Amino acid sequence: MITGKNYIGKDASAKGNKILKAYDPTDNSVFPEEFVAATSEEVDQAVAKAHGAFNAYKAISYEKRAQFLETIADEIMNLGDALLERASGESGLPVGRFQGERGRTCNQLKMFAGVLRDGSWLDVNIDTAIPDRQPIPKVDLRKMQIPIGPVAVFGASNFPLAFSTAGGDTASALAAGNPVIVKGHEAHLGTNDMVTQAVLRAIEKCDMPDGVFSMVNGGIETGQQLVRHPKIKAVGFTGSLRGGRAIFDLANQRPEPIPVYAEMGSTNPSFLMPEKLAADPEGLATTFANSVALGVGQFCTSPGLLIGIQSSALDQFVETLSGALAEKDSVTMLNSKIAKSYYDHRGIAVEQTGVQVLGDAKDPGENKGKPLTAKVDGESFLNNPQLHEEIFGPFTMVVACKDMSEMLAIANALQGQLTGTLVATESDIKAYPEIANALTNKVGRLLFNGVPTGVEVCHSMQHGGPYPASTDQRTTSVGTAAISRFVRPISYQSWPDSLLPDALKNSNPLGLWRVVNGELTKKELMDQ
Amino acid sequence: MITGKNYIGKDASAKGNKILKAYDPTDNSVFPEEFVAATSEEVDQAVAKAHGAFNAYKAISYEKRAQFLETIADEIMNLGDALLERASGESGLPVGRFQGERGRTCNQLKMFAGVLRDGSWLDVNIDTAIPDRQPIPKVDLRKMQIPIGPVAVFGASNFPLAFSTAGGDTASALAAGNPVIVKGHEAHLGTNDMVTQAVLRAIEKCDMPDGVFSMVNGGIETGQQLVRHPKIKAVGFTGSLRGGRAIFDLANQRPEPIPVYAEMGSTNPSFLMPEKLAADPEGLATTFANSVALGVGQFCTSPGLLIGIQSSALDQFVETLSGALAEKDSVTMLNSKIAKSYYDHRGIAVEQTGVQVLGDAKDPGENKGKPLTAKVDGESFLNNPQLHEEIFGPFTMVVACKDMSEMLAIANALQGQLTGTLVATESDIKAYPEIANALTNKVGRLLFNGVPTGVEVCHSMQHGGPYPASTDQRTTSVGTAAISRFVRPISYQSWPDSLLPDALKNSNPLGLWRVVNGELTKKELMDQ
Repeated sequence: MITGKNYIGKDASAKGNKILKAYDPTDNSVFPEEFVAATSEEVDQAVAKAHGAFNAYKAISYEKRAQFLETIADEIMNLGDALLERASGESGLPVGRFQGERGRTCNQLKMFAGVLRDGSWLDVNIDTAIPDRQPIPKVDLRKMQIPIGPVAVFGASNFPLAFSTAGGDTASALAAGNPVIVKGHEAHLGTNDMVTQAVLRAIEKCDMPDGVFSMVNGGIETGQQLVRHPKIKAVGFTGSLRGGRAIFDLANQRPEPIPVYAEMGSTNPSFLMPEKLAADPEGLATTFANSVALGVGQFCTSPGLLIGIQSSALDQFVETLSGALAEKDSVTMLNSKIAKSYYDHRGIAVEQTGVQVLGDAKDPGENKGKPLTAKVDGESFLNNPQLHEEIFGPFTMVVACKDMSEMLAIANALQGQLTGTLVATESDIKAYPEIANALTNKVGRLLFNGVPTGVEVCHSMQHGGPYPASTDQRTTSVGTAAISRFVRPISYQSWPDSLLPDALKNSNPLGLWRVVNGELTKKELMDQ
Repeated sequence: MITGKNYIGKDASAKGNKILKAYDPTDNSVFPEEFVAATSEEVDQAVAKAHGAFNAYKAISYEKRAQFLETIADEIMNLGDALLERASGESGLPVGRFQGERGRTCNQLKMFAGVLRDGSWLDVNIDTAIPDRQPIPKVDLRKMQIPIGPVAVFGASNFPLAFSTAGGDTASALAAGNPVIVKGHEAHLGTNDMVTQAVLRAIEKCDMPDGVFSMVNGGIETGQQLVRHPKIKAVGFTGSLRGGRAIFDLANQRPEPIPVYAEMGSTNPSFLMPEKLAADPEGLATTFANSVALGVGQFCTSPGLLIGIQSSALDQFVETLSGALAEKDSVTMLNSKIAKSYYDHRGIAVEQTGVQVLGDAKDPGENKGKPLTAKVDGESFLNNPQLHEEIFGPFTMVVACKDMSEMLAIANALQGQLTGTLVATESDIKAYPEIANALTNKVGRLLFNGVPTGVEVCHSMQHGGPYPASTDQRTTSVGTAAISRFVRPISYQSWPDSLLPDALKNSNPLGLWRVVNGELTKKELMDQ
């Protein structure tokens, strides 16, 4: 079933001689298949096919595009348990986790089908002509969103389904009307191969143009070639700051720069406000310990910073938290690179001035991630940018502030974040409004209690934030608004009704909400 | 009235010793005032004040912000004829032109006041909680747009009012809730000084926080310091490709990259389709001649490329066009730099292979722009990227294609454009749909007949386009949507109703259109 080949549109292709292998992180064993890295020529062919398919694909009706996305979801389900087992085998994550992640992946595809049918993403604005306006006539102008062209997608190792081959970036780019080229993730080559074939079956069934989807295997150079290619018009990426920034820099150095939507993770600070903390330090600590350890800490929303005021309640919180995390098992991480990076970065953090390790900092070996708590005083934290950086894995650091003003200084000194959490009573918020206010300048999602792990896929989700959480804080990589990353507005001036796109026609044949002369309405316009 | 000083918030400041002078381009005479370039320390102070004012300013109600914008417009009107005369004196443009441009500037400010009252720019999405959802509860999420922080604005020489000190960038950034620092344009120092004082009077009258607006005079280094400053969060720019790209590159090389909204002009190709051209070549030529010569061609939407099929109708069009442009007077351009650049770039263009000059290519001297027509065959145009570049001034080039397939090749080979025009009958569009289709991939605004000059300020305007027309094709610098450049989304998760911003409260106190659980509504929510 797994071919190990690249897919240049519908054509399986393996012209290269560089072989990639898939690994099982639980024992570093090697899967039997050989995956052939794409040659530079194959990458060019994939882009040429995507470019060639663009005009045909964008002309296909929104309804047919919606059916295409739904068919991709169906074909992913048709892969059955084999997909879940392979994804588990390549990532160390349990099969049960992939039942959920597959559901999310398919729901995302179906959600964008719904977005296409709803049509509000087209953001239609119409200003009708006033031919006798003085001193000059007013022209008829009608604006809508259109697709931008071929999109390159780089998946994430920690979501081999939901943020990879047919994940949110691919789903939203395809929904918007753009061909997609996926650079297959080296850490789940087989999973990627299977999902690619599911997408291609959907293309066949729905009679979509060849080139609307391609997948190329390879390393950094393959990715760089895609990002540099003049016919690629945007990039979706989920992964490390280092990787995201490299792609961002490359894209901006092009003769024609293109947008890069890189979601690069975050420390997700939680502020333990005095009244709330004092009421139940142990309960809160248990909740956070579970959030830190969830998925071996391999979420971009994992709570890596817990900030409180020095107090007996905080001491109790720290004791319970570190105890609970110490009791958690060591669990296999996604791959050897990520496990090594976890211990390397954690090792640097715990050696910083003022940092105290609360638990066993030994590496248990064999790619296993062992949770760990550390503690640092507010001043040491403030003075040391190293401690502000994300450590990907089940590690959290408690920052003990001497007072509320130091806590505020920390809120103001933080980098951009995907999330920030106020662990607080309503009185806490009212007593210290500056903390919440400072956090609004730093985060994409602001929680009142709860834990940041768990990212709801819906209209109101913002998954993205000020740099370095993402390279474009104006956009989200999760939820319906993700489609807006891959479109741009165009205004039609003085066009005859019959030649306008359906979305802009007087009769409103798509039944859209439209802003007509400043008023939101679904009404049709009288012929002008 | 003109002080020549910088304004660090409300404080006039002139600590530097570098003096700038204002010039009258009609005779290169010098205005008496001395303008003092800001020192590096003063620039830092302006940014520190802007940063300090941010939290206070963003907390001010939308209604008060709207009144502030309206008061700026009032104060600009209060400058009276002195402003129009100064703007005319510094730009060579007639006083009458500034009556119109002042009206547009004030209307833009008032339009954004209306945007603030309407509130649709907040883009509110609410998904309510489902506590008993299986397998995990659904949390309450509410998303809205918030301001991003201090914005640096670089004005344009060709619109000393509407795209400068209190122009569209400043108006939209202030509307969104961001402090603004203007780098005063060196080509209209006095105009900038007067408008700055008008803005400061509005700040005083409306009791806005000190630092919400600053203005610094200076050269390239002053601009670079602003763009590099870690507390500047976005840049608005209108001007040349070279200037815009330099700012874009600088902003993306920062440790924390920031968005740059640079509108950098365009050749604005017009496609003369066969049936339409044959019907009235002379009438069309006269219309285009007037558009090319309008404002001495100093518009980013000036029609610089006219593309037709070789025919007797095209010959007649070219003859009438070149004759009409030859008869136009030489008119003073904005400044000596722009006049020199016009003749330099035009000189390079007309020396290219295949280019034929139709008229008198002499420079009449004294900063005067003389209109000129050139003609080139399609093949020479296709093979020479130099001919695809914008020439700022009253110059246009007719591209004579051998057939429709060459015309299509040209449509596909063009750079990104602010506008594209189809000079066509409906039958032309139906007979050759590929041309319009190719242009949709290249332009921000697509006209059916008419001329591209004239940019309506409204909801449906798209003024921006694929690179190099602008650095961010997803946005517009004209019209209500310009506000979206200076905001970003934030999601509030599980917040008590009483602590939410008004826009997100159950009772919908601002009376906004909101997407609630996927449905667009103005209704209030039942308490959860």
